[in-house]
Amino acid sequence: MKPLILVTNDDGIVSPGIKHLVYAARSFGEVVVVAPDSPQSAKGHSISIYDPIHIRKVDVFDGVESFECSGTPVDCVKIARKIVLKDRVPDICLSGINHGLNSAINIIYSGTMSAAMEAAMEGIPSIGFSLDDFSFKADFSSCMPFVESIIKYGLDTGLEHGKLLNVNFPKGKIKGIKLCRQAEARWVEDFKINEDPRGRKYYWLTGHFQSGDEVEGTDVHALQNGFASVVPAQYDLTDYKALDSGLRMIEKIEI
Amino acid sequence: MKPLILVTNDDGIVSPGIKHLVYAARSFGEVVVVAPDSPQSAKGHSISIYDPIHIRKVDVFDGVESFECSGTPVDCVKIARKIVLKDRVPDICLSGINHGLNSAINIIYSGTMSAAMEAAMEGIPSIGFSLDDFSFKADFSSCMPFVESIIKYGLDTGLEHGKLLNVNFPKGKIKGIKLCRQAEARWVEDFKINEDPRGRKYYWLTGHFQSGDEVEGTDVHALQNGFASVVPAQYDLTDYKALDSGLRMIEKIEI
Repeated sequence: MKPLILVTNDDGIVSPGIKHLVYAARSFGEVVVVAPDSPQSAKGHSISIYDPIHIRKVDVFDGVESFECSGTPVDCVKIARKIVLKDRVPDICLSGINHGLNSAINIIYSGTMSAAMEAAMEGIPSIGFSLDDFSFKADFSSCMPFVESIIKYGLDTGLEHGKLLNVNFPKGKIKGIKLCRQAEARWVEDFKINEDPRGRKYYWLTGHFQSGDEVEGTDVHALQNGFASVVPAQYDLTDYKALDSGLRMIEKIEI
Repeated sequence: MKPLILVTNDDGIVSPGIKHLVYAARSFGEVVVVAPDSPQSAKGHSISIYDPIHIRKVDVFDGVESFECSGTPVDCVKIARKIVLKDRVPDICLSGINHGLNSAINIIYSGTMSAAMEAAMEGIPSIGFSLDDFSFKADFSSCMPFVESIIKYGLDTGLEHGKLLNVNFPKGKIKGIKLCRQAEARWVEDFKINEDPRGRKYYWLTGHFQSGDEVEGTDVHALQNGFASVVPAQYDLTDYKALDSGLRMIEKIEI
């Protein structure tokens, strides 16, 4: 039987990145797409609990079964599982290809990676792909052979050694793949300040990425040196080092 | 000099949980509140990149400097740092007290914990508090002595052993504090299906929490046994076990 492949993203169903991913995936199995009907970048692991969600069957991928969804990327995975696939379990979930890197701490803000993580939390091997190019005119030609090989690897192995992969590609020629840890980094936030049409001051978030951890072994280092980075990720956020530290005395504090 | 304490939450600035937290915090230092102007539960690490944010000074905590913000919980932390505090660095960030538990994997969906994590990513010791009671009439009397002691502990130690704590309280009498790891668990999603006023079918996310990991040492186990759970959390999502596994062969796959 052909593998069942769920595809989603956060840039929205009409973005070139998801089209490249769908067309790569369909040579490996039955593809079902459930993706946001609008850009949902930086939505993290947000889910819609206050609002209803709409889905609509669309024909944007040359016959591939596809639905646009009014919710977040994580909503897309949930509604794909329960409503669209009626509890059929995908063999793999692919998310992206994101326009812009999700390396380092960007994994935490990323709707693309949060969707992949949601699928992983439901036991589905999942891979998020991102390319270092925000443009809708991004050139995916260098990364597509890697995307295809990694999809094949994921299906062949069931990702038995790491159920959730964060894959990032540099712009241009790619020298190979490096298995990496997530680089420590931060965003230095800033806000554009202006007045809205009713005279109220508004703040519009911007900022720049600051990496202080570009050593070998990190995803940032691999990307800077022309390699695709693969970070195996997980959703157990426990800081195990802290568990075995002086923090233990918090159990004894005076109430 | 008095410590500077930033307080936020995800239930919104008028929720009883944040009021209890603000009133507990103000005996320890200078409190500044920046919290959402509407409920923002389950917004995860979402940030507003497509929309401007408004903030407004409000007087809801008996003279404590407070701002409501139209953004997400993580937006609140970012705008607090840059605009409200003008880069003064808080000694601690407190988030909550959430109406409803953020134990186990709920940390990932939680706006309360994502706000605390954002502050931790900026180097600020941070604690998120949650109580097992969704009601606005929740009784905080049992947990408040623990909240106060944990704030004091956080300020005294600077959380040197674990910069981000996920603290959850059971309903009713609390036997003590347990330092825990995050329990494995999942949400079994479901959707309420109905028709909107324009005749379109809509789906409204619901579901139930399914814990398959209630063994001693987990936060779920501690809470079930009447203890407050403290999970030290971190934002490096690397699955280090997978780094040293057969996954390494992904570097060698044929392109």
